[in-house]
Amino acid sequence: MTAAATHPAHDSRHALVLFSGGQDSTACLAWALDRYAHVETVGFDYGQRHRVELGCREPIRQAMAGLNPDWAARLGDDHLLDLGIVGQLGNSALTEERAIQMDDNGLPNTFVPGRNLLFLTVAAALAYRRAASVLVGGMCETDYSGYPDCRDNTLKAMQVALSLGLATPLTLETPLMFLTKAQTWALSHALGGAALNRLIVDLTHTCYLGEREPLHSWGRGCGSCPACLLRKSGHASWLRHSGEGAA
Amino acid sequence: MTAAATHPAHDSRHALVLFSGGQDSTACLAWALDRYAHVETVGFDYGQRHRVELGCREPIRQAMAGLNPDWAARLGDDHLLDLGIVGQLGNSALTEERAIQMDDNGLPNTFVPGRNLLFLTVAAALAYRRAASVLVGGMCETDYSGYPDCRDNTLKAMQVALSLGLATPLTLETPLMFLTKAQTWALSHALGGAALNRLIVDLTHTCYLGEREPLHSWGRGCGSCPACLLRKSGHASWLRHSGEGAA
Repeated sequence: MTAAATHPAHDSRHALVLFSGGQDSTACLAWALDRYAHVETVGFDYGQRHRVELGCREPIRQAMAGLNPDWAARLGDDHLLDLGIVGQLGNSALTEERAIQMDDNGLPNTFVPGRNLLFLTVAAALAYRRAASVLVGGMCETDYSGYPDCRDNTLKAMQVALSLGLATPLTLETPLMFLTKAQTWALSHALGGAALNRLIVDLTHTCYLGEREPLHSWGRGCGSCPACLLRKSGHASWLRHSGEGAA
Repeated sequence: MTAAATHPAHDSRHALVLFSGGQDSTACLAWALDRYAHVETVGFDYGQRHRVELGCREPIRQAMAGLNPDWAARLGDDHLLDLGIVGQLGNSALTEERAIQMDDNGLPNTFVPGRNLLFLTVAAALAYRRAASVLVGGMCETDYSGYPDCRDNTLKAMQVALSLGLATPLTLETPLMFLTKAQTWALSHALGGAALNRLIVDLTHTCYLGEREPLHSWGRGCGSCPACLLRKSGHASWLRHSGEGAA
């Protein structure tokens, strides 16, 4: 990547990306840096078992800025907020030492009711303070988990509620909503080439159990929790269809 | 009040009342106890300057149960949640030692962006856990403050977003939405008579500055902050129109 002069973004708005340090939110950060004039990031510490992901956030930001001078020029402040309230609403395998499995209601026991609604609401308040008018999140309907607070209808209703409640228009963008995991790898490749996908494999976090070793071709983690299995199969599917075996 | 057998509620649903310990949420609690089969309460500790209101909550609950055996039979658990995140979004006269005044955007500097959206989202998650399908809140459009997250349009949009995000129907009831403060006094009088209004005067909290003395005819507080002035003038207006001088 040459140190070319930076190009103006094609959308002059300021965006705030919900950035956990995982694959999905890193792809969203690339998507936002590719289009918005100024991009800030927000993460949440809610006592998640995989808190190791929070430590991945700043190295990913730095590495992404190093990939592209336009991205470096647009990348703004990071915010880390303490959301201990999620643990108080408790009773989930995401914050407690319990086996991850399906509950009787058809939802995995990683479901914290309204967790993503809470993330969006807090992010919207921060966006208001930071004069950002776009929120970008990695919510995805095609994800295996079926969390109702990640569905497109929910997000569109939330956009209306948040915009009314803050008395200012706020757009919620979810570029991964209808992508498979294989398509998310293709999206990041389209945005940042093989270098971005290598960065995602090496620096981002996915494993529910918080494991950072070993390093597989598709990323770091235990290799057997639902999040690792999803990432692994998505990566394999992308490789089969793209011919990007070297990425 | 005689120790008569309790009457069944006319709405079999379970409700969760956003209960701060103030006049409005106490009127809402009476409204809910009058109709729902089971009523729980939730409060939020967000580092508010007027945290003294939190200490008013349990005495109010106990006194209301003492007013009416039906209410005593329907009143369920109380929940107090730590919402320190509100302070992190900060910069408001509600949580900092600053004079309360109007900002340039026409909103009072007690406005914490999205504070009520956050309260509703967290309460909705708790309601899900507690199998309550109704949330009751004291949000009010006629209040002087004009908070956009208290408007009827905002609340109705939130009902849709929260119900979609939790994948279960949740009704948001706001019995005070279009009432003046005088009408709120009339509502509590209709629900619990002079005894309930005396309880509200003596036990509930309103003052932004957290003052509990002196005890005026309309309640306790400094008597000069915007919240005290609003309560005082509402009470005077109610007395003028109701002839309930002794309440």
